[in-house]
Amino acid sequence: MKIVRHGPSGEERPGVVDAHGTVRDLSGVMADWTPRALAHDELRRIAALDLGDLPVVDPAVRLGIPVAAIGKFIAIGMNFVDFALDAGRPLPKEPTIFTKAISCLTGPTDTVVLPQGSTHTDWEVELGVVMGATARYAETRDALDLVAGYCLVNDLSEREFQNDRGGTWDKGKGCDTFGPVGPWLVTTDEVSDPQDVDLWLEVNGVRYQNGHTRNMIFPVAELIAYVSQFMTLNPGDILTTGSPAGIGSTLKPAPVFLQADDVMRLGSGKLGIQQHRVESWRRN
Amino acid sequence: MKIVRHGPSGEERPGVVDAHGTVRDLSGVMADWTPRALAHDELRRIAALDLGDLPVVDPAVRLGIPVAAIGKFIAIGMNFVDFALDAGRPLPKEPTIFTKAISCLTGPTDTVVLPQGSTHTDWEVELGVVMGATARYAETRDALDLVAGYCLVNDLSEREFQNDRGGTWDKGKGCDTFGPVGPWLVTTDEVSDPQDVDLWLEVNGVRYQNGHTRNMIFPVAELIAYVSQFMTLNPGDILTTGSPAGIGSTLKPAPVFLQADDVMRLGSGKLGIQQHRVESWRRN
Repeated sequence: MKIVRHGPSGEERPGVVDAHGTVRDLSGVMADWTPRALAHDELRRIAALDLGDLPVVDPAVRLGIPVAAIGKFIAIGMNFVDFALDAGRPLPKEPTIFTKAISCLTGPTDTVVLPQGSTHTDWEVELGVVMGATARYAETRDALDLVAGYCLVNDLSEREFQNDRGGTWDKGKGCDTFGPVGPWLVTTDEVSDPQDVDLWLEVNGVRYQNGHTRNMIFPVAELIAYVSQFMTLNPGDILTTGSPAGIGSTLKPAPVFLQADDVMRLGSGKLGIQQHRVESWRRN
Repeated sequence: MKIVRHGPSGEERPGVVDAHGTVRDLSGVMADWTPRALAHDELRRIAALDLGDLPVVDPAVRLGIPVAAIGKFIAIGMNFVDFALDAGRPLPKEPTIFTKAISCLTGPTDTVVLPQGSTHTDWEVELGVVMGATARYAETRDALDLVAGYCLVNDLSEREFQNDRGGTWDKGKGCDTFGPVGPWLVTTDEVSDPQDVDLWLEVNGVRYQNGHTRNMIFPVAELIAYVSQFMTLNPGDILTTGSPAGIGSTLKPAPVFLQADDVMRLGSGKLGIQQHRVESWRRN
């Protein structure tokens, strides 16, 4: 099942994509895709509906973040073999955890805004994992049972803010609009193996990232178990699992960073496509 | 005004402390102390009520986190002159930002749990700032106008998880129960100057921290303005502003860390007192 939320920012309503790719409105059936609605039983209840009975949503409507009321947005650093080779760094012995501020979450076609003073804003296409159940000291073998589904995430990063301004990475990871999620949350009946997902990203039509989750250093089940040793993951939390090679800051012979008016497209055969126009911040 | 939430964990109801120190129930007047209720207009509406007309809450009732639906829990590292001297580190040129997972939030008298495998769990008494309005590229001179109030925070930290497990500090800062907040959110009519707040902390009756916010390297108004350059602070977000000297890991001649059955008390003349029993994690 492909879960969506449709409508203007802040007024999204729940929906689902039918077998023909048409968005069907679920507002008559449920309040919203809240964390509670991501439990397996609830997902099965919605999956059992006859989608043909549900109202068709205007295909031109904006899609928002596919999950409402996200609690935490946890991220993993350097989790692809090809990314580590590109960066010229050794493979990590255990996963690197960092946080993206939830205020950076934005929809799959929304504008990405370069923060004031930014000259080093970079992209990272990633597989996002949305929890459907609580993970606390989870075992690797049970971890995927706690997942509601998977989604496309762009872990945008201002490299100068991240690396050269002192302290942790948070200054460069949580800027407003730095966390596009969607278009869909694809439930685990459709994506049963998170290590079999392609990921790609283009800027202005140039393909920079072309990866596959089989190249993860720490697979998704291990990541969930690992993170849950340090904090409880709750339904509706998002864990984004690291980016393959091809980020702008490690390009040779010279790095490439996002500029105003760039168009960024990213996607996956299983998770759908995002498209974002880039603009510079200005006070409204 | 002293804002509280009273009742069992997860079922807290809104309240307020009257001039005699008695908690009065606000459930008949408002749904909860949500971010929206922290706007100055809303605070003034509640402050104008005749508290004598409101039901008295049983003095034995548990108090919870004084604000509901907190979005972000942002923290500042090494922000006290005395702390930096204790740690033997130079004063930072700009503030260090890190994140505490919102799943670590807990009430002012709840048990603090040592995570599995923890041997280096440490305390940090701090002044917490709760936003009442949106701060985005805020100016220092306007920043305090955006604050709903102040509260006591314990920024518990597992130093080995924080410093020796690779990556950012998140592994040691966001463990479950590592973010006690309360007992009160004290609104800005009562605490007009956040640089005039005392802070103390004791473990098993021994006073380890005895600080004052006049010793902050970056004052609260500057911190709000600074953080808002990197991410928007929204109503209901908490910013905790760094700890004075006297944390366990820098004690001489030998560090002291929390142990099961310790009793930790922390407080401030203006912000109230927390008391926590410490226990080791065990699967329920």
